Amino acid sequence: MRRVKLLSTGKYLPKNRVTASDIEQRLGLPKDWVEQKSGVLVRHFVEDETASLMGALAAKDALAAAGLSIEDIDCIISTSGIPEQSIPCTAALVQKHLGAIDAGIPAFDINSTCLSFITGFDTISYLIEAGRYRRVLLVASEVCTGLNWHDRESCTLFGDGAAAAILARSERGESARILTSSMETYSKGAHLTECTGGGNKYHPKDYADNLESFLFRMDGRGVYRMASEILPRFVDSLLQTAELKIADLQMVIPHQASLMAMRLICKQLGIAPEKFMTIIQTHGNTIAASVPMALHEAIHQNKIQRGDLVLLLGTSAGFSVGGIVLEY
Amino acid sequence: MRRVKLLSTGKYLPKNRVTASDIEQRLGLPKDWVEQKSGVLVRHFVEDETASLMGALAAKDALAAAGLSIEDIDCIISTSGIPEQSIPCTAALVQKHLGAIDAGIPAFDINSTCLSFITGFDTISYLIEAGRYRRVLLVASEVCTGLNWHDRESCTLFGDGAAAAILARSERGESARILTSSMETYSKGAHLTECTGGGNKYHPKDYADNLESFLFRMDGRGVYRMASEILPRFVDSLLQTAELKIADLQMVIPHQASLMAMRLICKQLGIAPEKFMTIIQTHGNTIAASVPMALHEAIHQNKIQRGDLVLLLGTSAGFSVGGIVLEY
Repeated sequence: MRRVKLLSTGKYLPKNRVTASDIEQRLGLPKDWVEQKSGVLVRHFVEDETASLMGALAAKDALAAAGLSIEDIDCIISTSGIPEQSIPCTAALVQKHLGAIDAGIPAFDINSTCLSFITGFDTISYLIEAGRYRRVLLVASEVCTGLNWHDRESCTLFGDGAAAAILARSERGESARILTSSMETYSKGAHLTECTGGGNKYHPKDYADNLESFLFRMDGRGVYRMASEILPRFVDSLLQTAELKIADLQMVIPHQASLMAMRLICKQLGIAPEKFMTIIQTHGNTIAASVPMALHEAIHQNKIQRGDLVLLLGTSAGFSVGGIVLEY
Repeated sequence: MRRVKLLSTGKYLPKNRVTASDIEQRLGLPKDWVEQKSGVLVRHFVEDETASLMGALAAKDALAAAGLSIEDIDCIISTSGIPEQSIPCTAALVQKHLGAIDAGIPAFDINSTCLSFITGFDTISYLIEAGRYRRVLLVASEVCTGLNWHDRESCTLFGDGAAAAILARSERGESARILTSSMETYSKGAHLTECTGGGNKYHPKDYADNLESFLFRMDGRGVYRMASEILPRFVDSLLQTAELKIADLQMVIPHQASLMAMRLICKQLGIAPEKFMTIIQTHGNTIAASVPMALHEAIHQNKIQRGDLVLLLGTSAGFSVGGIVLEY
């Protein structure tokens, strides 16, 4: 049990709003193909926005919601799946956009691809509980630069955007807390979802001869198989640690991986569909921003209230699963 | 105070050993130019090794030194400055090379460029202290794919390689602990050291038209100016928290940024040169692997003993500084 409170959240969607029919036209697909196959009716793509700028705008939204300014924050963590640049870490670039360029607020990145926000939230909660940091800003901001526009299954699924959250120690008398959390990585699935370029394995000079390596590739069926094999036991064990049943939760905030897979997993876990926060239809899969965006929407649509028990639940390339049971 | 013990370290240097004179020949530089300007007599570059493979080999070295196997580890963190691939995180790839593909050991990355190992060590120590993880494997592995071979100042400085460390809770009666730690980020220096490509800001298809963006760039003078402005106060404050003086430390393990800058900083901080671990001459600047490599060498050269007070001290792109005072 960690006395950590989610103070507020924020969100930023890029200016370019792209509908399913826009995508169908771009790819020469029949009418309604995207809606039927991916379920994503609207996603946003960046025009001139960078990931760190979007992250800073989402952070400003979260700061305003908490009635705080950046000077009240003593740690900034970027929990994005893909960095903006190789060097420096994205959190430093977010700090710069927030204008706190000389305050010394520590800034670093935590990465477990689509699970990064949950891993960051989970990890840093121990430092908040221990008093190392008082208020931590988590930012997840994604730009899907590496989409393969020849792979209809994946390119119709993703969107850009950012979300932020501010965490703090619960004050005396407040019941907000983390009841339990867990993460597991099964690298037998390490190559099911990957983009082999972008890091130090391949040099961009090899791009022309090695195009596929620099594009996102996903074995959707293989990922779903692993998720459905691992998640039921993982969620059972997580809830058991907190002495809870799935029906005790007011809301589950899952990673918005794909609408079809989400529906199947929701059913398999025995979660009532109205308790399974789903925003993929209007946001797409925004990689690591997907969980905090869905959390933000759940709060703003009054689907979760203070005192509610909430499960943040994600899967990611790796293959990893992660979850946090919290009282909001 | 965190009751965390550094159980063991490991190291891997790639097969291709490259001398200063090899570099001089490659670049058409006069004899002794590299020795005089960068001080790096030997660095290693990968042949067929990947970052995750080197990381796994360093990890095996650390596991053997601690008398452990991978099954004894319950968290794997990659603390490399540059990932191997965009997706998934490097820690999952290291887990795969270690053969523990189905054990569910959580694996994720922590990144603050050259400071990543110190940030990872510092951060995860709270989870070890709290009992979340019993034994954590930290791996830092770097391949300098993005070196700009037209920039003599930087390309003569760097080397590839990996190092690993295993952390655990101190057992009853053991005095090994973290006395204090700190990190500060000043994004006014965010663009002093950077590689703007490799993340989602630029697509590799733009490489041909935008070559410089995909290469490492460093304003060495600017970085040195910030380091010498920030480090004295930072180290003073860190030691004050631990109620120590610089002379109480048996060894300082600094980031091996550049020999010249290291000598100036050592003098400025009032550290006796024999207490300032320096391996850059035979390893180069190996980015985030540099601190754990120097730590490994200090242990193996019997420069630090159990019970010694040691300061891990680093700087990084961001611009960040970080430090940990520990009893080994």
